[in-house]
Amino acid sequence: MRQFVCLAHEVPTTPSFSLDDLAGGAGRLDALCRSLTAALLRSHGIREDVRVHLVLQDELTISVDGREVRRLNPDERSTAARIRTALEHRDEAIGALPAEPSPGFEVYRRGFAATLDELADEATIVHLHEDGDPLVVGPLPEEPAFVLSDHGDFTDAERETLAEYTDRRVRLGPHALHADQAITVAHHALDTDGYERF
Amino acid sequence: MRQFVCLAHEVPTTPSFSLDDLAGGAGRLDALCRSLTAALLRSHGIREDVRVHLVLQDELTISVDGREVRRLNPDERSTAARIRTALEHRDEAIGALPAEPSPGFEVYRRGFAATLDELADEATIVHLHEDGDPLVVGPLPEEPAFVLSDHGDFTDAERETLAEYTDRRVRLGPHALHADQAITVAHHALDTDGYERF
Repeated sequence: MRQFVCLAHEVPTTPSFSLDDLAGGAGRLDALCRSLTAALLRSHGIREDVRVHLVLQDELTISVDGREVRRLNPDERSTAARIRTALEHRDEAIGALPAEPSPGFEVYRRGFAATLDELADEATIVHLHEDGDPLVVGPLPEEPAFVLSDHGDFTDAERETLAEYTDRRVRLGPHALHADQAITVAHHALDTDGYERF
Repeated sequence: MRQFVCLAHEVPTTPSFSLDDLAGGAGRLDALCRSLTAALLRSHGIREDVRVHLVLQDELTISVDGREVRRLNPDERSTAARIRTALEHRDEAIGALPAEPSPGFEVYRRGFAATLDELADEATIVHLHEDGDPLVVGPLPEEPAFVLSDHGDFTDAERETLAEYTDRRVRLGPHALHADQAITVAHHALDTDGYERF
């Protein structure tokens, strides 16, 4: 399974935002939507072996599972509506138990460190970083969990958390990309078995 | 220079659509916007060595030049607004002369064949096709123009046009991707000099 942890520093944790202003009033929810769909969708289908964890303001985490999610479309607006619906159910998440607003969507009351802690046993935590090694140096991780920040970089506290959990620090190419582009490139590297099979 | 020719079969050629319904009423303009921004943007910057040609209903072509375009944002809605503004100026395109609604944007009264004909002298026309050779077989094209269709496949007439102009038929990986994802992967292959430099 491939997992992606996407940090959103400004996306609201309540559903009180307009779908008409995702880039502004909703704290760049547009970008988070693109990351979600880049991770889960390809042409004519869903990537079933993928889970995405959207960490909102280090407070709530929405996890979306490719095996279960239904009717996810690639456009930002309908994806944002799905996230808004998930946030409407946030109060149903109690302790470690998630709310389950729709198939494949879970809302957890946990932030970044707790999300990484959940993943650490099962996955290789991969920190995408411009000073890391190319992903294809050494064996490809079989159960990777890629960690990406939004348009804002990781905070100092997030870097400390990451340092505690990171198994590999990896760069994908010579240029810094948007998070959704980085997700697409990571999928491509894995889809091709490290650029060996096209 | 890298160029991308993106066919949109259902996107309106007039500005009479709502930004609130890009995926429906605007004929999947959302997807075309993602292709445009995937081609032109990376994190914190514009790819200046890129031109994108959006062919709408084989009737109008909007060309966007990375050297000149300003204030292009990655979200679908603001990008769609830029395209809508361009379409408001469509009547200023006369004969072979384009309308120039804003820096970097040109609107031409030409369809697919005429757009390829313009590019054929300067660029290697690359048809992305699942039965093509991997892009990295043989030397990378130095001046590629990648041709992509939207969610609908190429029509028979478009295939005939393509056959006339195509220099290489190329596949990017083992899975069919959305057009914007394919653009990101093509950039990645070229950014890394064919997966040699990370």
